[in-house]
Amino acid sequence: MISQEKNSGSAATPDVPVKIDRAHPVTLREVAEAAGVSTATVSLVINKKKNARIAEETRERVKDAIRHLGYRPNAMAKNLVSGTSKFIGLVADGVATTPFAGQIIHGAQDEAWKHGYALLIANTEGNLDLEKDAIAMMLEYKVRGILYSTWFHRPTDVPETLRESDFVLVNCFSPDSSTSRAVVPDEAQGGQSATEILLRGGHRRIAFINTTTPAPAKDGRLKGYQDALEAAGIPFDPSLVLEAYPDQEGGYGATEELLKRNVSAVYCYNDRMAMGLYDGLRENGLSIPDDIAVVGFDNQEVIAAHLRPPLSTVSLPHYELGAAGVRMLLGLDKSPDGNLVKISCPAVERASVAVHSAA
Amino acid sequence: MISQEKNSGSAATPDVPVKIDRAHPVTLREVAEAAGVSTATVSLVINKKKNARIAEETRERVKDAIRHLGYRPNAMAKNLVSGTSKFIGLVADGVATTPFAGQIIHGAQDEAWKHGYALLIANTEGNLDLEKDAIAMMLEYKVRGILYSTWFHRPTDVPETLRESDFVLVNCFSPDSSTSRAVVPDEAQGGQSATEILLRGGHRRIAFINTTTPAPAKDGRLKGYQDALEAAGIPFDPSLVLEAYPDQEGGYGATEELLKRNVSAVYCYNDRMAMGLYDGLRENGLSIPDDIAVVGFDNQEVIAAHLRPPLSTVSLPHYELGAAGVRMLLGLDKSPDGNLVKISCPAVERASVAVHSAA
Repeated sequence: MISQEKNSGSAATPDVPVKIDRAHPVTLREVAEAAGVSTATVSLVINKKKNARIAEETRERVKDAIRHLGYRPNAMAKNLVSGTSKFIGLVADGVATTPFAGQIIHGAQDEAWKHGYALLIANTEGNLDLEKDAIAMMLEYKVRGILYSTWFHRPTDVPETLRESDFVLVNCFSPDSSTSRAVVPDEAQGGQSATEILLRGGHRRIAFINTTTPAPAKDGRLKGYQDALEAAGIPFDPSLVLEAYPDQEGGYGATEELLKRNVSAVYCYNDRMAMGLYDGLRENGLSIPDDIAVVGFDNQEVIAAHLRPPLSTVSLPHYELGAAGVRMLLGLDKSPDGNLVKISCPAVERASVAVHSAA
Repeated sequence: MISQEKNSGSAATPDVPVKIDRAHPVTLREVAEAAGVSTATVSLVINKKKNARIAEETRERVKDAIRHLGYRPNAMAKNLVSGTSKFIGLVADGVATTPFAGQIIHGAQDEAWKHGYALLIANTEGNLDLEKDAIAMMLEYKVRGILYSTWFHRPTDVPETLRESDFVLVNCFSPDSSTSRAVVPDEAQGGQSATEILLRGGHRRIAFINTTTPAPAKDGRLKGYQDALEAAGIPFDPSLVLEAYPDQEGGYGATEELLKRNVSAVYCYNDRMAMGLYDGLRENGLSIPDDIAVVGFDNQEVIAAHLRPPLSTVSLPHYELGAAGVRMLLGLDKSPDGNLVKISCPAVERASVAVHSAA
């Protein structure tokens, strides 16, 4: 390290950063000695206290010393003064198992960064002990607040300790919404969008293969399908609603039942189901979209755009959910919807539904 | 908050935690007052300094006060004393875009947690400014070390500031391996495993559709294919190696060329390519595995197990890469391989290769 004579009064240090000695990180005291000032003065310069009476030349001397010594402020010390750290905690339960949680993180992180916060991410994979420890850790690090997210849209218990912090539920909600803020996808609007893709294609006899698994998406997407039919003046026919497990095997297995319904179009609960249905339809000698149009839901990476033909679908807005969660936590949006904010699911039109040419 | 008379000498507080007043987190001083002791005493109890001369009854009084007031130690204050925080930083560049990075995080987090560390995760999506800020933040928070990971196996520059910390490259490596430790997948062993699945199925005329994109995996997986053939006494025929873009469209587009080679089996560079090839083979009236056996690589979530038939493949060990990265950082493994550790890629056998019945 370059040594400076104490009180030398000279700022003529060469403009070359020194090699960092990792075993001995530079201390605030060493900066003070190098600049010939007190540690209090160094602290005032680092924290950019403009109203402090420090001569410009002194300020420059301190900054030079910081640069040449390679000093890094101790963020933890700074935060002791301010009260909270520049972290926002994010508890996620399925980062490794699905691509969805990754987009929630992405959106949350981008939004947090814009406002000077970094994310402290804990991935619990549903392990409640790990979850408890993670929240405790975030509280100890005085996070500004915590985003509690789930990889699929569902109701959740709110861990008691979460209430020691500001928090927002992301992609999940508490039955007791009066004490919890949440941001979720608008499943009904999404289901309506999916059905509308098919209505725009000129279809009127449209099946819906819903999931067997209970979930807000199950009720929401069905409602959206019904709302779209009603708006188009098409009577709702319950026999056109089937159910299957929400993956490829479920979609494949539903083919036989579907073909009995003699529809020209089908809306599948999700893209994975549509992928399996593609196999089933193909095995029956049918071609998409000419014999039957297909719409999915999720716009799942590596599937929807790459099926043959590419699948029309509705996007789950995970990135926007993460970003909205951060904005809600930081109080950046007015929330006309109060404690539960619903984010729109945009339609993504591809080749699995033919463009309608009016006869 | 329950108030205690100073020096009351009584530990008879009701065993009911109080409601947390979030606007005013409990301070160490308030715990001291409640327990009728000095802040120094409280600190010794919190940090479990067993050799400090504190009467058991006093220790209990302090613990009671902590519990009833809902006091949370300030982790940042503790860490100022110890020098580093209980964090390990992880810089990832593709959490949102691929499911692979999520498994690296999962493995790293599980391993870190076992040893009392939490991960401070920054997802950069390749943004170099964000990366620089993220590393700076991790250094300010005095992380024990940093894992620098990429979503696919590739060479990387090492950001200068990364060297201010202990660090390990995960799923990437520096050409100058003398100054960087790295943990990567063993691509050659993986390519050999993939080919061996087909050899075990009795195949001898085996094509390999490699990627067009330059990458360690391109060279490694080809070498593995060659090594497996050589070990089986089959001469290497360069005309059986094709190239295609590593996704569904690439695999589909390679079908015509592949069929000219008249092979009984094909090993695809990755599962996505195999998925596209499935479509191409099917369009040509061919059936898997009866007409042609297919092996992929990656064991990609939502694809490999769900193709029809389910795809035999080789798993990329992302979880193990993350865990090994943490162990390397913490110095927990002997490293006989020195600075570059290669992790095995296990074979996953499914129905796209028929079991060989010896004639």
